[in-house]
Amino acid sequence: MSEQGLFDCSPDDTHTQIMRATYEALRKHGYSDLTIQRIGDEFPKSKSLIYQHYDAKDELLVAFLEFLLERLEEDMPIDGEFDDAREHLRTLVDYALPDSFEPEHVDFMEAIEALRGQAPHDDAYREQFAATDDFHRSHVAEVVRAGIDQGVFRDVDPERTADFIVATVHGARNQRATTGTHEPVRAAREELEAYLRTRVFVDDAEESDASAPKE
Amino acid sequence: MSEQGLFDCSPDDTHTQIMRATYEALRKHGYSDLTIQRIGDEFPKSKSLIYQHYDAKDELLVAFLEFLLERLEEDMPIDGEFDDAREHLRTLVDYALPDSFEPEHVDFMEAIEALRGQAPHDDAYREQFAATDDFHRSHVAEVVRAGIDQGVFRDVDPERTADFIVATVHGARNQRATTGTHEPVRAAREELEAYLRTRVFVDDAEESDASAPKE
Repeated sequence: MSEQGLFDCSPDDTHTQIMRATYEALRKHGYSDLTIQRIGDEFPKSKSLIYQHYDAKDELLVAFLEFLLERLEEDMPIDGEFDDAREHLRTLVDYALPDSFEPEHVDFMEAIEALRGQAPHDDAYREQFAATDDFHRSHVAEVVRAGIDQGVFRDVDPERTADFIVATVHGARNQRATTGTHEPVRAAREELEAYLRTRVFVDDAEESDASAPKE
Repeated sequence: MSEQGLFDCSPDDTHTQIMRATYEALRKHGYSDLTIQRIGDEFPKSKSLIYQHYDAKDELLVAFLEFLLERLEEDMPIDGEFDDAREHLRTLVDYALPDSFEPEHVDFMEAIEALRGQAPHDDAYREQFAATDDFHRSHVAEVVRAGIDQGVFRDVDPERTADFIVATVHGARNQRATTGTHEPVRAAREELEAYLRTRVFVDDAEESDASAPKE
């Protein structure tokens, strides 16, 4: 549910270089102060190459959101990397809601949330954010289904559980980006973990003491 | 956690009329297409009165966010109106995450989330959204504290519980406004209710059957 190491294993072609320049410019200038000129400043080749592909800033940013989603789809850890679905789901939540964010990552999250603010009135942005949210919701639902199959999760509704987890993670991250307050991120992680223990995971739920919700 | 009936009991002075005109213009045109001219079109008195008070659209919108927060503080239901804190908290969650939103309300939510998208790079907006989030978090924490005092809630951490609830509600509403998808709202309400029953409320938690999380 995050976007670190975006360019770690990307081929070094022109498209990827434009995307990397967009990332750097977004991070440095935010959405409102972004211009194609500023993206060009981060681009190692001739700026005219950017104009050849994209007429306007918004067109380029929609392509950037597509690129982010492709990366996300490729890089998302898969079941085989974890002992079981519990570890998988815990890792996703920890990763999306860490104790603190690197300053560079905060800049990027802020730019993305500013972009997201364009979505209510721009169909191309809306479509991209809807596709990204869908991806997260389907991915988490798959992990929940795997957990049920493995016998480590209760027989919960995978979609509903996933939608809830993704809404909470998104809300905390969006609050972080738009108000600068980290408490919602911390609270969301702690209470999501408690929710998973008491409502989703099989073993822990049986072990947990219902009268001691304060850890 | 919502903003319906904003102008029901407002005095009909110039300030309130400007705020009402801003609301109507925001709802109709969204944030990006909003101009002071368009706000003026919704204003029953001379447009010059608006320019007398506000130089720029963003200045007027920050005043509008302040107005929203004042209204919220005045209109938020208080303890005495409910049988106990459980009913109070359930009502807040139902109100913020209804089965469906009126089209007019969706337009307004979209405009507010677009405005919120400005917050990462605009201190005045950021301050207003931080104050609004703080208000929601403190308000819910107060209700949780009341529930503990009344003996109907377990001894949970009021702030953490409130931060979690507000993050989830915000996330689902923001997803709704920025992607047009209602599922996150439905899932958030159902799972928040389950969370309250199993982790926060005293009676229901004891009644609930741990092996049947699917209602």
